[in-house]
Amino acid sequence: MTIHYPNGKQYSMPSRNAYPKKSAIVHHSIFGKRGMTLEQEINESNAYYLAHDIAVIHKKPTPIQLVKVDYPKRSAAVIREAYFRKPSTTDYNGIYHGYYLDFDAKETNNKLSFPLKNFHEHQIKHLRACIKQSGVCFAFVKFSKLDRLFLLPATKLFFYWDQQLQGGRKSIPLKNIEQDSYEINYGFNPTIPYLDAVDKMINDFGV
Amino acid sequence: MTIHYPNGKQYSMPSRNAYPKKSAIVHHSIFGKRGMTLEQEINESNAYYLAHDIAVIHKKPTPIQLVKVDYPKRSAAVIREAYFRKPSTTDYNGIYHGYYLDFDAKETNNKLSFPLKNFHEHQIKHLRACIKQSGVCFAFVKFSKLDRLFLLPATKLFFYWDQQLQGGRKSIPLKNIEQDSYEINYGFNPTIPYLDAVDKMINDFGV
Repeated sequence: MTIHYPNGKQYSMPSRNAYPKKSAIVHHSIFGKRGMTLEQEINESNAYYLAHDIAVIHKKPTPIQLVKVDYPKRSAAVIREAYFRKPSTTDYNGIYHGYYLDFDAKETNNKLSFPLKNFHEHQIKHLRACIKQSGVCFAFVKFSKLDRLFLLPATKLFFYWDQQLQGGRKSIPLKNIEQDSYEINYGFNPTIPYLDAVDKMINDFGV
Repeated sequence: MTIHYPNGKQYSMPSRNAYPKKSAIVHHSIFGKRGMTLEQEINESNAYYLAHDIAVIHKKPTPIQLVKVDYPKRSAAVIREAYFRKPSTTDYNGIYHGYYLDFDAKETNNKLSFPLKNFHEHQIKHLRACIKQSGVCFAFVKFSKLDRLFLLPATKLFFYWDQQLQGGRKSIPLKNIEQDSYEINYGFNPTIPYLDAVDKMINDFGV
């Protein structure tokens, strides 16, 4: 696809369909090159699921503490002083086929284990509260350097979290994550077909 | 309860328990006098439901478009220029007893009808998408001057919304809202016991 700009220059936009349809691994490395963050990958996948009436999942906006807002005449309000507040929940929630989904997404540059410090007490607390209400709760755990993405059920996360609180190790070894999670292979549409993993999780856990 | 301030003055804080337990109508007018906004009433009720493991419902933060953020040494990041963005969803969602709940809350000073302009296309669209996924979707509709609060099922709201699009009236008459909604009587704990109305709605609609 070629766009002609007014200045006469041409810009070639990378088209998804232009890529040859090879194996998932090829797609994977292509996406790795594109340099999307995990958040972008999830947002893009959610947009796909929404557009196709498959699920309604959104990222929650970051909470802001407003201090000073200007209201100029005939134009939009301008926030002139504000601070980031700590969220009291996870970043994502929504509905899929009658199920309430709730999750957070974390990345690490480590190659052998996933540091638990990526998670925060309020997120764990929130996930526990949602589990009590029969929600489908999990965390995306991505090893960026390995280009590997896992969906880790919240109950498994709690296990390692609680171990840590009792003086256990401060990270989850990759081999444990391989055992306890559903690995997600990158795709085209959606980028992360994570609802397949959610289906398996619902099936295994009988939520 | 009395608080002694350093300046020697006394401030009497209205204590909930200090109110005599009379009829719901009495509570109602007391809360009206306290001047809580509908948002505050809902947030307070959600905090009660959360603290008692009854439901996990949160208001989503307002989305902000950041333009300029300062990172001063040894202190928190300060947002120096930002703008309010239009939300793409409703304000509230969460989970109750396995059900996904999604709703918005609107107030009017009108006494005879509720103006549909309080709702926005993107909210209606979002509620329709959630209904397709079997969510429990509704709107709080408050007549502030009358101190009357209703839980209007989303499907009923769609009916009036679609009528309006076809040239029908731009507001929902109070008498129709009385018929189509569940009226919520104000309480102490929670301020708005709205999950009772949700139970009735689930029972009636068989979500």
